[in-house]
Amino acid sequence: MDPRPGHAGFAPAPGRQGPVRALWHWLKRSGRSEQPALKDLAPADLKRVRTTLRECLAEAGGEASARGRVEWLSATYRDLAEDGRKRLLQLLAEEFGPDEHAVGRAIEDYLRTPPGPTRRHAESRLRLALGSPRIRILKQFNLLPEGVKFLVDLRDDVLRYVRELPDIAVIDEELHSLFGSWFDVGNLELSRITWSSPAALLEKLIAYEAVHEIRGWGDLRKRLDSDRRCYAFFHPRMPGEPLIFVEIALTRDMAANVQSLLDESAPVLDPRSAHAAIFYSISNTQPGLRGVSFGGFLIKRVVEQLLAEFPKLRTFATLSPIPGFRRWLEGELKAKSQTLFASADADRICRAASTSDPHEALAELLRRDLAEDAPAAVAVEPLLAHLAATYLAETKGPEDGRAQALDPVARFHLGNGARLERINWHADLSPRGMRQSCGLMVNYLYKLDEIEENHEAYAREGRVAISGAVKRLLKPR
Amino acid sequence: MDPRPGHAGFAPAPGRQGPVRALWHWLKRSGRSEQPALKDLAPADLKRVRTTLRECLAEAGGEASARGRVEWLSATYRDLAEDGRKRLLQLLAEEFGPDEHAVGRAIEDYLRTPPGPTRRHAESRLRLALGSPRIRILKQFNLLPEGVKFLVDLRDDVLRYVRELPDIAVIDEELHSLFGSWFDVGNLELSRITWSSPAALLEKLIAYEAVHEIRGWGDLRKRLDSDRRCYAFFHPRMPGEPLIFVEIALTRDMAANVQSLLDESAPVLDPRSAHAAIFYSISNTQPGLRGVSFGGFLIKRVVEQLLAEFPKLRTFATLSPIPGFRRWLEGELKAKSQTLFASADADRICRAASTSDPHEALAELLRRDLAEDAPAAVAVEPLLAHLAATYLAETKGPEDGRAQALDPVARFHLGNGARLERINWHADLSPRGMRQSCGLMVNYLYKLDEIEENHEAYAREGRVAISGAVKRLLKPR
Amino acid sequence: MDPRPGHAGFAPAPGRQGPVRALWHWLKRSGRSEQPALKDLAPADLKRVRTTLRECLAEAGGEASARGRVEWLSATYRDLAEDGRKRLLQLLAEEFGPDEHAVGRAIEDYLRTPPGPTRRHAESRLRLALGSPRIRILKQFNLLPEGVKFLVDLRDDVLRYVRELPDIAVIDEELHSLFGSWFDVGNLELSRITWSSPAALLEKLIAYEAVHEIRGWGDLRKRLDSDRRCYAFFHPRMPGEPLIFVEIALTRDMAANVQSLLDESAPVLDPRSAHAAIFYSISNTQPGLRGVSFGGFLIKRVVEQLLAEFPKLRTFATLSPIPGFRRWLEGELKAKSQTLFASADADRICRAASTSDPHEALAELLRRDLAEDAPAAVAVEPLLAHLAATYLAETKGPEDGRAQALDPVARFHLGNGARLERINWHADLSPRGMRQSCGLMVNYLYKLDEIEENHEAYAREGRVAISGAVKRLLKPR
Amino acid sequence: MDPRPGHAGFAPAPGRQGPVRALWHWLKRSGRSEQPALKDLAPADLKRVRTTLRECLAEAGGEASARGRVEWLSATYRDLAEDGRKRLLQLLAEEFGPDEHAVGRAIEDYLRTPPGPTRRHAESRLRLALGSPRIRILKQFNLLPEGVKFLVDLRDDVLRYVRELPDIAVIDEELHSLFGSWFDVGNLELSRITWSSPAALLEKLIAYEAVHEIRGWGDLRKRLDSDRRCYAFFHPRMPGEPLIFVEIALTRDMAANVQSLLDESAPVLDPRSAHAAIFYSISNTQPGLRGVSFGGFLIKRVVEQLLAEFPKLRTFATLSPIPGFRRWLEGELKAKSQTLFASADADRICRAASTSDPHEALAELLRRDLAEDAPAAVAVEPLLAHLAATYLAETKGPEDGRAQALDPVARFHLGNGARLERINWHADLSPRGMRQSCGLMVNYLYKLDEIEENHEAYAREGRVAISGAVKRLLKPR
Repeated sequence: MDPRPGHAGFAPAPGRQGPVRALWHWLKRSGRSEQPALKDLAPADLKRVRTTLRECLAEAGGEASARGRVEWLSATYRDLAEDGRKRLLQLLAEEFGPDEHAVGRAIEDYLRTPPGPTRRHAESRLRLALGSPRIRILKQFNLLPEGVKFLVDLRDDVLRYVRELPDIAVIDEELHSLFGSWFDVGNLELSRITWSSPAALLEKLIAYEAVHEIRGWGDLRKRLDSDRRCYAFFHPRMPGEPLIFVEIALTRDMAANVQSLLDESAPVLDPRSAHAAIFYSISNTQPGLRGVSFGGFLIKRVVEQLLAEFPKLRTFATLSPIPGFRRWLEGELKAKSQTLFASADADRICRAASTSDPHEALAELLRRDLAEDAPAAVAVEPLLAHLAATYLAETKGPEDGRAQALDPVARFHLGNGARLERINWHADLSPRGMRQSCGLMVNYLYKLDEIEENHEAYAREGRVAISGAVKRLLKPR
Repeated sequence: MDPRPGHAGFAPAPGRQGPVRALWHWLKRSGRSEQPALKDLAPADLKRVRTTLRECLAEAGGEASARGRVEWLSATYRDLAEDGRKRLLQLLAEEFGPDEHAVGRAIEDYLRTPPGPTRRHAESRLRLALGSPRIRILKQFNLLPEGVKFLVDLRDDVLRYVRELPDIAVIDEELHSLFGSWFDVGNLELSRITWSSPAALLEKLIAYEAVHEIRGWGDLRKRLDSDRRCYAFFHPRMPGEPLIFVEIALTRDMAANVQSLLDESAPVLDPRSAHAAIFYSISNTQPGLRGVSFGGFLIKRVVEQLLAEFPKLRTFATLSPIPGFRRWLEGELKAKSQTLFASADADRICRAASTSDPHEALAELLRRDLAEDAPAAVAVEPLLAHLAATYLAETKGPEDGRAQALDPVARFHLGNGARLERINWHADLSPRGMRQSCGLMVNYLYKLDEIEENHEAYAREGRVAISGAVKRLLKPR
Repeated sequence: MDPRPGHAGFAPAPGRQGPVRALWHWLKRSGRSEQPALKDLAPADLKRVRTTLRECLAEAGGEASARGRVEWLSATYRDLAEDGRKRLLQLLAEEFGPDEHAVGRAIEDYLRTPPGPTRRHAESRLRLALGSPRIRILKQFNLLPEGVKFLVDLRDDVLRYVRELPDIAVIDEELHSLFGSWFDVGNLELSRITWSSPAALLEKLIAYEAVHEIRGWGDLRKRLDSDRRCYAFFHPRMPGEPLIFVEIALTRDMAANVQSLLDESAPVLDPRSAHAAIFYSISNTQPGLRGVSFGGFLIKRVVEQLLAEFPKLRTFATLSPIPGFRRWLEGELKAKSQTLFASADADRICRAASTSDPHEALAELLRRDLAEDAPAAVAVEPLLAHLAATYLAETKGPEDGRAQALDPVARFHLGNGARLERINWHADLSPRGMRQSCGLMVNYLYKLDEIEENHEAYAREGRVAISGAVKRLLKPR
Repeated sequence: MDPRPGHAGFAPAPGRQGPVRALWHWLKRSGRSEQPALKDLAPADLKRVRTTLRECLAEAGGEASARGRVEWLSATYRDLAEDGRKRLLQLLAEEFGPDEHAVGRAIEDYLRTPPGPTRRHAESRLRLALGSPRIRILKQFNLLPEGVKFLVDLRDDVLRYVRELPDIAVIDEELHSLFGSWFDVGNLELSRITWSSPAALLEKLIAYEAVHEIRGWGDLRKRLDSDRRCYAFFHPRMPGEPLIFVEIALTRDMAANVQSLLDESAPVLDPRSAHAAIFYSISNTQPGLRGVSFGGFLIKRVVEQLLAEFPKLRTFATLSPIPGFRRWLEGELKAKSQTLFASADADRICRAASTSDPHEALAELLRRDLAEDAPAAVAVEPLLAHLAATYLAETKGPEDGRAQALDPVARFHLGNGARLERINWHADLSPRGMRQSCGLMVNYLYKLDEIEENHEAYAREGRVAISGAVKRLLKPR
């Protein structure tokens, strides 16, 4: 997949609010019957933390002692309020790095040896010298039943604090590398989630769903009905905790509107008569696994499973949000970008908005309720479809000037070898859908015999696979 | 446990012969219905191997392509005869190391940055630059169902070839480090093995048992009877493949003779009336996991399990071989070591051997059949018991002058916190027992409330915990 | 247990309404994606049913043919509306009984043989001759994965139609006897139900709970919290289908009020500090298993499980409804029973109701809202407690004049060996609680060392075990 | 299947000897570490048995009491020697039958009622009155974990004692009827047995194999190799205890010789290239389940499984013994049956045996070693093939004059719908094979599209499906 696992994925949206957010927090804390107020880290505690960390390194005693130490450390950390946690992380970063003298000697040694086998030995020794005490301590948390989850949550904290505390970036990097090894795709288990899955697992779907909020048990039951499928990756050391999950609707044709997919009163299709499998939601659940990408593997394994169950399926496509579209468009409008409009478009929107400046006109129309205001909608539809196609196919990200799409979801699917297939108007009329992308959504098509080629072309040259329909949208107007 | 996992353990004895050896080979090859002759590596094949290794690095295509590549590589490797394997390993070591220029730049960068957060970043980058392409390729074998086992067997090969090919030592080191992470004790599962375990697993015990050969299914059934226990560690990615296993007899008292433990016609004890648990055999099964030590964890976890099942147990002890005793003693005799005999001992053995040189006398008596020749046995018994105690408690190894016992089994149990409890005469009268240790065996006692302290004292100062009885044997005579 | 498994138990209350009732119906029909209109049984269909039943008897063809036949029969039956079902059952009763000539001959034969071994043979032959073709056909439904459930539902129908169609009583009797063998307690599995149980199972609890309606997933989650337990019996041939389940609250003391037990916002108790286990709801789920009683076994097995988990538990008691109390009381009032009131009670209620006829007074006060109307409540409380004690302990049922309590729940627990422990005022203020028992509830106490004796005394002489407190309530006033 | 489950099947051969017989006994007794001498039933014990049986009927106390009683009864019975067991069974038969007065009244009642619903009620009541206390007691053994196995073994005893004690036949009949319900094919689980099955299960195969003795673990391993399959039926209440198992070889063609199938050194076939599945051994394991036939179901379910795994299979056939052939033939010879020989045959064998009486000649030749004595073999081969065909296809059993084959294995397969396909000469040269059938074996062919028709024809008219080749053998010569 993605050779340098990016920072994109589908992390839980920051703006999530209300009861679902509360449930999510509740889950993070669950296992303790009462939630005491979080504490500060008193100097005496800090001292004991330092001593315990050193004992971890000394590996004094046997397995039981080691487990006791990390148990105490994890309980202490979990009970700390933000300030205490920061201080503890800082301590770990500052005092438990590799021995710099040893590193220096190993470097000297390395530089002195000639290439060949001896150099390879020196290389090994240098690698060993760079091995950090921090990570040796953190690995010991694997002795705890919930230890892996603890480290994943710890990295979540690190990622949130790191702007303020650049010192702790090194913990992020070391955990990222450790997780890359632990969460290797060979270690992940793909499981189907059904209405017969444990309720304790299903409520996590409700909490974690990041794309189209699950509104309760009735909604969830619909999403697990006989014409739906849901799959997740699990790690054997984090049982009952999905790492990423995907929701699929089996439909006759490629779906164009997400509200009708989610309509609880819609009739159920006999899944054996379906020709299309629509991936309408993919949610990463663990912010602490950022950059450890398994989304691509998930989609391809799920396609295999679906084909085994329903050999008649012909179309595998997503119905995806375009989360960055409106923000990008508003930026372009502010900058008075001259490439936005062809004259026909400009005329049409100026007429609808009763102004003569097309930038102002578009800005004004976007402020209206495009779900309800038919004249405004008619005026902007062709232009927005063109602009969305441009945004997805031709607008490159700042992170990697050469090749990567600016839109994170596009980056993910195009990087996986999907094709930009169709732009859908009035496809997501929810408040979030209107806010992010003026109600537009996109289908990315996974065409089995083109995936590899598309992936290669995108990875090497940033070339995007595009359907005929989207090509027509892209044409100069 | 052992902070720097040692090279000792209990690797299958090299001298294993006959049908069991054949079965062991058979198991290594099983899964293929016919065993074709192993092939050489033709130049064209070598070229294809190189190309495929490069494609692995490029991570071209998706998971299926990646899996296809490592499948081909593993099948190719498995079919190669020794010469071909060596060439392939050499290729991997020479051509797939880190980019030395990048390492050079990262070193420069590191040396230039001042200590503190920036230095830590430079450190991270240097670590990344040292990350070897080899190991990135090897990790991809985890995609195969049998991939982990393949890598373990690969390292077995590397360890056998490395004297001749010092270049490939780097592969050993990298795999050792990778296995340290994969076979972390938190990832291991302790399982009891019983007569209700799969026959396919049980026949592996027969093949792998390294200490006291299992002579067939009847012998095995006895070792799994109601007054016996057998436990093993398993790794989830190597199902059905025990990593290490221990055999235990539940007895009234601390056992002093292994043949009576293994006597198939001996009556079965009601295990609830047992006071002692005797660990009479511990076998590592995977030579490719050398240095990844989990034996100490195994013993302590098994003690927990036994106590939960039989709260009346008071004594946890081994009945262990002294594999290096006779070799060491013969070396001392050759060197005419002057500290071997007190005069009373010298007199006694000279009389028995009818010579006046005690060194010659002992050498001569050792050549007799001490299991049968009563006068010889009577003459040497007190002396050999004294010498064995000296060998175990006071003879330090060449590998680590400071602290480690010379005898590998002693090193293992003393390092785990056990106490040198009792030397047993006529304890193993099998040919191997006579050959290795003149029929002597030793009990190491795991006293629950002393384990930690013993472990510390041994690890820090090389101080050995010794029972009163053994102390008396050690006294100058 | 109950030597003649009664007709009481805790069948789903007939008055269940609203969404829960709808869900229950939905579950009964689930498995079919669309619910077609139920059909009538056309004459041609009836003919085919008769032919197929005869083929079943002939056991033509192999297992596949047999399975095909019962599959068709069960699908046909499931799609029939009530009229068709009745006709089909009638057909089965009338035409598929034993051969009366063969029975006649076997009787003759039996009557002719003298007592002793020959008579025993004749007895066997008579038993064989009475073996009914109906039941041989019905047993074949066991070939279907859902066949056992089908038969249980079939008997539910029979029980509902039998008043109108006395002919089909024989099917009820034969199925009752068959179920007695199939649902033998040795074949039942006791399982704990938790929040980690499948949602598809949990929603059945919501639907089946017959005593205190579960109001949704939040209510259910509370009932499965760490200070609660829920256990059910399952049959291996009806997986995922609880036969009977019990809900338990772990509390400090014997609970006196069910609303506070069910309060979702109540704090969670650390279950290790509980001294009492309160069985506050027992629900039979399968009307078709009426008379196959396993409730008593359930309670005793659950007590064992609870004691194993929480050795500190001292009190095992129910908090039970008194479903027949008010109906009985109103009957007594109508009949102007003279034994209801002592004079003090009569005075008090007459004063409160401002009438001079105590029967009228009580009737009048019972019409008020005793949950809110404090003066009325104060006036009736001691009288109602006395009357409830009388009703439970001294009022015998019409079904079995000798011994059985009139109240079905009392009959169940007293028959199991429980003791009538405490009458609780204002214990169930729900509409149903007020309607059935004026808000009163009762604790039955399961005292482990008295259960057998109580059971014997009740079974043999109808003697009820009564606490001191209830004895005081019973005293002539 | 067989509408009246016969007495045939493949019960363990009575003549089984030596170590395997010993192991079989050992298994029957296992679970007790020491085997005490079996005891007699003292008068006091008999009295206690009677009292306990009565308490069972009274169902005094709860489940724990009931379990305690049957535990005591089963332990008592297991410890009894043959005489005591007989006395106990006699007691059960004589004193725990139905109440004859109640039966008499129910008969009177039945005879008095007119046909119709009322008669059906009387019928129900009569059936109830005939319900025997014995069986109510025996059913309670289901409360014990090993209770079902106990009853199966009890019936084994009854079947062995019944000739001597005709009184206890009633227990056999009642258990037979109970087992018919418990071991209904819907309650049986088909499982594949492999080399990964528990050793404790595999050793039972060694003990129970009734057709071709398994000579040890090496032989067993061969029978579970990749070109073999083994399936068994299990009952959920007798886990780890196969009820019947079948061994299959996947071969290119229909096998003609069993020794080559069982040759441990034969090469392993790639099972995907097999066209035939040869059922070469079917063993019933529980003598106590005699007459409860599930063999036919087993074969058909296994055929389904094999086809699912190997869609290329074309031929499903047995390679079966002809256990009664030689005994029948010797009977015919003794009786000087005139239909045995055509004149050509008579001449040939008279020449070979140097006598002029063909009956004597054949008797004489059969006494020779036909596996080694080529001239004798050549002389008898065509005649024996003809006679075996006659025996299998045309010789009807004494038990059911109309239709059933005399040979029990033929009865089983022909009754299942198989076709008599081929007689094989020199097919089983083992001592048993020579003794039972002069080394002949037979293939019964299961042709999927003819099974039902064959089954019907055989069941209704005793018509046997015969291949062209066997028809030619049957022709008058």
